[in-house]
Amino acid sequence: MQPTSLQRTENALAAIAAAGEEGRRIFTRVYAEAALAAARAADARAASGTPLGPLDGRVVSVKDLFDVAGEPTTAGSAVLRSAAPATQDAAIVQRLRAAGAVIVGKTNMTEFAFSGVGINPHFGTPGNALDATRIPGGSSAGAGVAVARGFSDISIGSDTGGSVRIPAALNGITGFKPTQQRVPRDGAFPLSFTLDAVGPLARSVLECAQADAVMAGQPWQPLPRRQLRGLRVGVPRGLLFTQTEDAVAQAFEQVLQALAQAGARVDDVALDDWLGAPARLQQNGSITAAEAAHIHADVLAHQPDAIDSAVLARLRPGQSIMAAHYVGLLRARQRLMAELDAQIADYDVLLLPTVPMQAPRIDALDHDADAYHRTNVLLLRNTTVFNFYDLPALSLPITQPAGVLPVGLMVVGQRSADRALLAIGHSLQTQLGPLR
Amino acid sequence: MQPTSLQRTENALAAIAAAGEEGRRIFTRVYAEAALAAARAADARAASGTPLGPLDGRVVSVKDLFDVAGEPTTAGSAVLRSAAPATQDAAIVQRLRAAGAVIVGKTNMTEFAFSGVGINPHFGTPGNALDATRIPGGSSAGAGVAVARGFSDISIGSDTGGSVRIPAALNGITGFKPTQQRVPRDGAFPLSFTLDAVGPLARSVLECAQADAVMAGQPWQPLPRRQLRGLRVGVPRGLLFTQTEDAVAQAFEQVLQALAQAGARVDDVALDDWLGAPARLQQNGSITAAEAAHIHADVLAHQPDAIDSAVLARLRPGQSIMAAHYVGLLRARQRLMAELDAQIADYDVLLLPTVPMQAPRIDALDHDADAYHRTNVLLLRNTTVFNFYDLPALSLPITQPAGVLPVGLMVVGQRSADRALLAIGHSLQTQLGPLR
Repeated sequence: MQPTSLQRTENALAAIAAAGEEGRRIFTRVYAEAALAAARAADARAASGTPLGPLDGRVVSVKDLFDVAGEPTTAGSAVLRSAAPATQDAAIVQRLRAAGAVIVGKTNMTEFAFSGVGINPHFGTPGNALDATRIPGGSSAGAGVAVARGFSDISIGSDTGGSVRIPAALNGITGFKPTQQRVPRDGAFPLSFTLDAVGPLARSVLECAQADAVMAGQPWQPLPRRQLRGLRVGVPRGLLFTQTEDAVAQAFEQVLQALAQAGARVDDVALDDWLGAPARLQQNGSITAAEAAHIHADVLAHQPDAIDSAVLARLRPGQSIMAAHYVGLLRARQRLMAELDAQIADYDVLLLPTVPMQAPRIDALDHDADAYHRTNVLLLRNTTVFNFYDLPALSLPITQPAGVLPVGLMVVGQRSADRALLAIGHSLQTQLGPLR
Repeated sequence: MQPTSLQRTENALAAIAAAGEEGRRIFTRVYAEAALAAARAADARAASGTPLGPLDGRVVSVKDLFDVAGEPTTAGSAVLRSAAPATQDAAIVQRLRAAGAVIVGKTNMTEFAFSGVGINPHFGTPGNALDATRIPGGSSAGAGVAVARGFSDISIGSDTGGSVRIPAALNGITGFKPTQQRVPRDGAFPLSFTLDAVGPLARSVLECAQADAVMAGQPWQPLPRRQLRGLRVGVPRGLLFTQTEDAVAQAFEQVLQALAQAGARVDDVALDDWLGAPARLQQNGSITAAEAAHIHADVLAHQPDAIDSAVLARLRPGQSIMAAHYVGLLRARQRLMAELDAQIADYDVLLLPTVPMQAPRIDALDHDADAYHRTNVLLLRNTTVFNFYDLPALSLPITQPAGVLPVGLMVVGQRSADRALLAIGHSLQTQLGPLR
């Protein structure tokens, strides 16, 4: 017999409490009473045969950049601890509650979501779920650790340059960044208006798809089973495959071999002109930095010392970007998007490592600004390309021997074909050896 | 018996030729042979009872920022005289040709469309149709003069801050700026990606509506007749009514009196918080200047001396606008648009003077940079507000005694309700004394 929602909620709350200080580094808030009440209501609906759908009674956390009515939204920043309370729930929080989700708490994150490392000096750094001395990945750091440690079934994160997919990869779980327009961002503290996307982290693609459907305002339909035989897979070897750790490369190649054996058509595809363009164009100022410089103009002017120095180092350059450069970036992006769409039109998915490394140690980065910067750039390198191109992307955990740190497989789909990508991801995860 | 398209095209070509040098200041190109061929084809369709619609056989000119295949698009600039020829017609040129329009030529304009005055030192300044010693208004300068002098039935212009409505007002004709998304801008040389709109100038609202339907890709439907009785008219007295010449104010008040007599509900409405915001927010750098600084970055870097000094003086400040400021402008605009929409929801239209003056003399501005600047700011003041808010707007000529310079009435509608605005404008123009 399945445990009730109340039992699972009680278990999650007990596990969070038992984690002590670490629990408080993963969750900035825990809603014990509201969660238990929501779980009881879900159980009552289940008992009366009127469940609301696949998310009814599931334990869900939200990143602490989504508004919850009555509380300040910290976005991981000490400055915002004293912000005005949100007047209403973020749009996705409303939709999740309406679907019966049990909101168990808010998860910790990189300050202002502006780093892929996951270190936070204000609220503490959640340790990686498999080795707490290692980084969780960010910016949805607590979100990834919470799922991997069983503190929530599903965590909702945001992804501007990889902030869902990186913690998913480093903690051995599944993460999904949708096409930007799919999920409303009302009530989400922004990092980049142009690039922010809202997506789930969970143990499986199926759970991600269920959460995604609710957040996208779509009725749930089971994912169609996709045949691996004949699946057209592009592997964009080149720039995004450099500087890749052996363990990551080996795990990735295992997947490709298994796919080929399963009858998929796996082809290398030369896309470096497009996949290298975002870094090339933005080396003297990025879209995100320009938009963040506007969003955080007041804090930068009046309380810069209150910002994590590593985040401040990413925000400062945004203040010197010229409007003409930024306008040019947006125009170039539109053109490049159309070009890459044409290049990949024949592929169902592109595959590449989500991140080129396994989780590094926290103490190797925490007090070494250069190492932090280098690692951050490399953590974000592969993922951020697909925010620039607004293509939906999954990170799936590649099965590793016990005790070996996780490796993530990025599966990139066609723009707005989010359901097709989720269906392929689900089929990969349920049918392919190294991903099961 | 109606003159044939061939007769009207021959008449237009003869009149342009007879205007000599002035004709060459109004038109940068004349397509005599192609126009005559198109006119004959239209007449053949009419004779066989298979006309293409209301634009079939009409004499139409296009501003010289719309691509015509095989020719450079000058955008009024000496620099672009040697640009690569366009590879295909602009989208609206394609649609006009497909609807049977006789494209008689390309009209002169302010360089890069970046001024409301209409002076052009490279291609010459077309004189105002009613007094050639006075400015035509810009930037669609030739477009306005061509219609007013009978050189084209309809001229297609573009309007980023008033460039259709200002020459319409100063030359005593009708001009229409649609909601931006209504008409495609493919193949139109840009001034501002955010604010550019493509619209027609003609003798009547009806002709503007016919051209607009073709450019918007919609089948022609006659405009419904709107009752003036009960029409809800807002008059936003305040900032946009200051510095208004007596003749303009008097003509405007005549219209209001006639409207009240016709049973319209004419109310003053306090909108200065919103109508003043665009200038206030953009005083240290405008959306248009930022985007133009990107578009013209190469020319500014390598051939600034080839640009009209008055236009260069408007382009230069765009180079020092910061991205964070520009991002903030776009965000503020979104918020303000929603606010103003709510404020004007109860009105069918807003009415105000299109420009607060009648056409000044060219020689008062041509060699006086300060006077040019002051006049330009005032010419654009009222119109540019409704590009910022992306509301559709007409300029209708207010009937004046013989020999008196024209005055324009701006009629502003609700966003995307372009057809409703055109219907009201048509009813005003056919039913109301001072506008007939």
